[in-house]
Amino acid sequence: MEKFEITILGCGSATPSPKHYTSSQVVNIREKLFMVDCGEGTQIQLRRSHVAFARINHIFISHLHGDHCFGLLGMISSFGLLGRTAPLFIHAPQDLWQVLGKELDFFCRDMEFNVEFQGFDPDVTSVVYDDRSVCVTAFPLKHRVPCAGFLFQEKNTQDHLDRAAADFYGVPMWDYARIKEGGDFITSSGEVIPHSRLTRPSAPQRSYAYCCDTAYNPGMIPFIHGCTAMYHDCTYSSEDSDRAEKHFHSTASDAARTALEAGAGKLILGHFSARYTNENALLDEAQKVFPNSILATENLSIAL
Amino acid sequence: MEKFEITILGCGSATPSPKHYTSSQVVNIREKLFMVDCGEGTQIQLRRSHVAFARINHIFISHLHGDHCFGLLGMISSFGLLGRTAPLFIHAPQDLWQVLGKELDFFCRDMEFNVEFQGFDPDVTSVVYDDRSVCVTAFPLKHRVPCAGFLFQEKNTQDHLDRAAADFYGVPMWDYARIKEGGDFITSSGEVIPHSRLTRPSAPQRSYAYCCDTAYNPGMIPFIHGCTAMYHDCTYSSEDSDRAEKHFHSTASDAARTALEAGAGKLILGHFSARYTNENALLDEAQKVFPNSILATENLSIAL
Repeated sequence: MEKFEITILGCGSATPSPKHYTSSQVVNIREKLFMVDCGEGTQIQLRRSHVAFARINHIFISHLHGDHCFGLLGMISSFGLLGRTAPLFIHAPQDLWQVLGKELDFFCRDMEFNVEFQGFDPDVTSVVYDDRSVCVTAFPLKHRVPCAGFLFQEKNTQDHLDRAAADFYGVPMWDYARIKEGGDFITSSGEVIPHSRLTRPSAPQRSYAYCCDTAYNPGMIPFIHGCTAMYHDCTYSSEDSDRAEKHFHSTASDAARTALEAGAGKLILGHFSARYTNENALLDEAQKVFPNSILATENLSIAL
Repeated sequence: MEKFEITILGCGSATPSPKHYTSSQVVNIREKLFMVDCGEGTQIQLRRSHVAFARINHIFISHLHGDHCFGLLGMISSFGLLGRTAPLFIHAPQDLWQVLGKELDFFCRDMEFNVEFQGFDPDVTSVVYDDRSVCVTAFPLKHRVPCAGFLFQEKNTQDHLDRAAADFYGVPMWDYARIKEGGDFITSSGEVIPHSRLTRPSAPQRSYAYCCDTAYNPGMIPFIHGCTAMYHDCTYSSEDSDRAEKHFHSTASDAARTALEAGAGKLILGHFSARYTNENALLDEAQKVFPNSILATENLSIAL
């Protein structure tokens, strides 16, 4: 199966600490690397995780709280010092450019690569990235400030050719690509061999929903329904649900309920408050509702 | 002896890495805490070092390269989240405010404390902080951009009262303070007992010179002469002196020569290039010229 892997760089909330870096992760889909959020220290974690960071070309920022974007300037600056030449695309709520543009003008004037800023409105659902094999859609979460989730979807790959069937019907090699893409085959005697008899279906399309910094948000569930994995805000335990409500964050139970209702394959819990010395209580709480829950942790990679 | 202690938070150069954070340190003089430089991740290191960061009221920024100031915004923002109310003074080259002012306006509007920016010109020597017990002076270094060193000087403390002598001459307790500050005593019979016979001299005045990001800079030597300890740029080994020259940094030998010429008590080597896997070669090189050299390292505290 082709790669679809999440690497957690930081999964703490509010302020970085010796225990957790603030939000950042890398989504690797068939060796295309996408970064989601970029808290302070993300570049340190990138080095530590051995992610091939020169291959990150797109960064998605969910919202404009510091724990999700204070690492951008330092990381961009370091990319410059390390000789990057490929353009870097930042997809973020439009207002970020007011500050980031100024910062880059001031500190990063002599870089050999361009930062291409692409603003989006986190209050509406919109496709923020699309190519042959991957589509990334931003959708609204429910937070104190406008805040987006991101759905990463791989596109259907070509079906696999059944080599024995192809040989049996005399399909010439030059016609393989067309058949894998969906074509039928007509033999020399005029018989139509349907595509389905010559191929095996490709692996199912996988998807990953990043839903960080949100209160329980049923509105998004139809949109992310059936995702292979979901990262969800799990800032608090249910005992602190008053705090969750006040700050527009979720409890472990909220996260698990969302995963259940969304029919997610797996739930990754993250964005932990620093108040819990042991996050296993959060995991227990989630697993009571949604058994296939795991705790995010720095440098953890999860293959979908 | 009253406290005069340096705690290294970061001593790498250019970009933070898993091995070294970028420049930052805390100078504790009699429990007044001063921060010098603030690279990305400084707030993480502050937590790790158990420095009582709420007591940092003054931050000195040497120059406007990212590895010396990219941690400011995140740290200030976290101070706000953690409930700081005392004003925080940032002493930095004036231009920093162009960006930092914008950043704070954007990200830190609702903080309960004020950031007081006090610009200075790194191209001239000037007192940037002064109180009863401490004076901090900025002085020019020799770098690609205007860059300051900082000299921290404790002021003379009061002499210690010789209690036996005071009793012998019948000094009343209410007169102790005046005598410690330098006064003589006149006995009831009119005899003048000089201050020197009633006191022992206070500890010698200590000083610390922070000379980071500089080529060999003989111009500063008369100014810092006799400092108790010196932190000096030691980015390269002599084998890479061409790089040192090109980037306006120092080799270990340059640092040691400076310490020797300045009659420093101790040399702390820092701002290491990431190219050296083992910095002991840098230490060896320095110690050949100036034996009392040590390597800075994260979370090291050095008492003067």
